Amino acid sequence: VTGKVYLVGAGPGGIDLLTVKAARLIGQADVLLYDALVTPDIVELAQSARKICVGKRGGRASTDQAFINRLLVASARDGSVVVRLKGGDPMIFGRAQEEIEACRAANIEVEVVAGVTAASAAAAQLGISLTQRGIARSLAFVTPTHGLGTLDDDSWADGLIATQSIAIYMGKGQSTRVRHVLLARGFGDAMPVVLVYDVGRDKAGHIAGTLANLGELVNLPTNGPIMILVGEVFKGIAAADAKTILSRATAAPKRRAL
Amino acid sequence: VTGKVYLVGAGPGGIDLLTVKAARLIGQADVLLYDALVTPDIVELAQSARKICVGKRGGRASTDQAFINRLLVASARDGSVVVRLKGGDPMIFGRAQEEIEACRAANIEVEVVAGVTAASAAAAQLGISLTQRGIARSLAFVTPTHGLGTLDDDSWADGLIATQSIAIYMGKGQSTRVRHVLLARGFGDAMPVVLVYDVGRDKAGHIAGTLANLGELVNLPTNGPIMILVGEVFKGIAAADAKTILSRATAAPKRRAL
Repeated sequence: VTGKVYLVGAGPGGIDLLTVKAARLIGQADVLLYDALVTPDIVELAQSARKICVGKRGGRASTDQAFINRLLVASARDGSVVVRLKGGDPMIFGRAQEEIEACRAANIEVEVVAGVTAASAAAAQLGISLTQRGIARSLAFVTPTHGLGTLDDDSWADGLIATQSIAIYMGKGQSTRVRHVLLARGFGDAMPVVLVYDVGRDKAGHIAGTLANLGELVNLPTNGPIMILVGEVFKGIAAADAKTILSRATAAPKRRAL
Repeated sequence: VTGKVYLVGAGPGGIDLLTVKAARLIGQADVLLYDALVTPDIVELAQSARKICVGKRGGRASTDQAFINRLLVASARDGSVVVRLKGGDPMIFGRAQEEIEACRAANIEVEVVAGVTAASAAAAQLGISLTQRGIARSLAFVTPTHGLGTLDDDSWADGLIATQSIAIYMGKGQSTRVRHVLLARGFGDAMPVVLVYDVGRDKAGHIAGTLANLGELVNLPTNGPIMILVGEVFKGIAAADAKTILSRATAAPKRRAL
C-alpha cells in the first residue's frame, strides 16, 4: 500500500487558527515533517506520528530541500500518511511547488490543504481591513528575500506604488532595505507602516509608524516572525502609535524609542 | 451583561476549511449573521443560534449595511454572543471595517477571526503555488468591482503588470472587461489564466487558457463564486487544458468549448 502526502498549512500559529481538516490530518499522521515556525502545541497534536523538524529560520542552517523531498517520498512509499506542515498557507511563500513536483514525479499522491496566511491574521489582530472600502481595492503580498535568501534584485517592489495595501513577508532584518527601496519607488515618507510580530501567538503585538521611521521600529520584543504592513488603511493606527512612541521617548530619553 | 461580536472568516466553503476557532464560536453563538456564500453545512453548526442570512450575491438585492450594523450592535447589547460569518477572510474583500467601526462606536467588544481566503484554496485545488520559486515573488489580490458594485474606474489594474501572480476576486460576469483592461495594461495574449469555481465545495473545478481566450472560458457549470487567476505559474495547467478544450471542440463542434 502506498501512502499519501498532505502539504498542510498550519496557519500563523496556535491550534485555534488551524483548519478543521489540518487538525484532523495532523492527528492521523504517521509521519509529521514540520517547519521551525510551526508552534509546539500544533506539533503535539500528532500523537502517534514520527515527528521530524525540517525547518528553517532566517539565518540558520536549514534542511536541504532535496533531502525533504526524498523523505516525503520514502515515507509515503512505506504506506505512511505523511503530513508536511508549513507555517501559514503552503501556496503563499511556502515553497510548496518543489515538494509537489517531487511527489508527482514519484507517483505519490499529494494533496494541498490551504491555511490562514499571516497577512490575514495580522489584519485581524489589528482590527484593520486590508481592503477597506474607499481606500484599498488592491492588496499585494511580496517578499524582499529570494527563495534562496539572496538579495540580488529589488523587482519585488515593481509596480507596488499603484497597490493600496502591501504585506511584506519574510522582511525580518530588512527594514532598512525595505524603507530604501520603497522610497526609491515613489512612496512618501508619511506612508503608514505597521510591524506586526508573533501573529497568532501569545505574545503577539505591533508597532506602527511611517516609512520615514521604519528603521527605528525594528527593536521588537520578539525573536519570532514579523510581517511588515504598508498602506493608507493603517493611517489611524500609525497616528495613535506615534503619540505613544513620542511619550515613551520623552519619558525615557536614553532608551531608543521602541 | 453586554455581549460580544465576532467577525469570523468562514473560509471558501465547507466545514473542513473553517478554522478550529471559527467552528467553536459558531457552535457557541446565540446569534449568527451570515453571508449568502457561506455553505449550509457551516450554518448548521450553529445549533442553538438565531440564524439570519444577510448575504448578498452578485446582482441580487442585499441587506443594507446600516441595517447589519444595527443588528450586530443591538444583538450584542442584549448580551448575546454574536457571530458574523463572512466567506473567506473578513479582512480581504470582506467589508469588515464598517462593522468593526459600528461596534466600536457603540462600545461593543469586537474580535476578528481570520479565515482561509479563496486564492489560497484555489491554489491548493490546482496544486500550483502562487509564489513558485524562480517565477513569482509577488502576488496581488484585486477586484474589478467596487464595494458598491460600480465599475467607474480601472485603477485596480494599475501596476499589476509588474506583479507575477494575480488573484482576481469578485470577477464573475466580468471576464470580458478583465481581459480588455489587462491587455490595455500591457499583458500579453499568451498570459496563462485559470478560472477556478466553487472553491472548497463539492463541485469545485477549473478551466484554464490564456488571456486571449478568457472571454470563451466563462461558460462554467456553476452558479457559485469564481476566482480568476493570472500568471506564468499557471502556464503548465493552461497548456494541458488547451489540449483538452481543443479535443472536445473537435469531437463536438456544435457545442461551445467548455
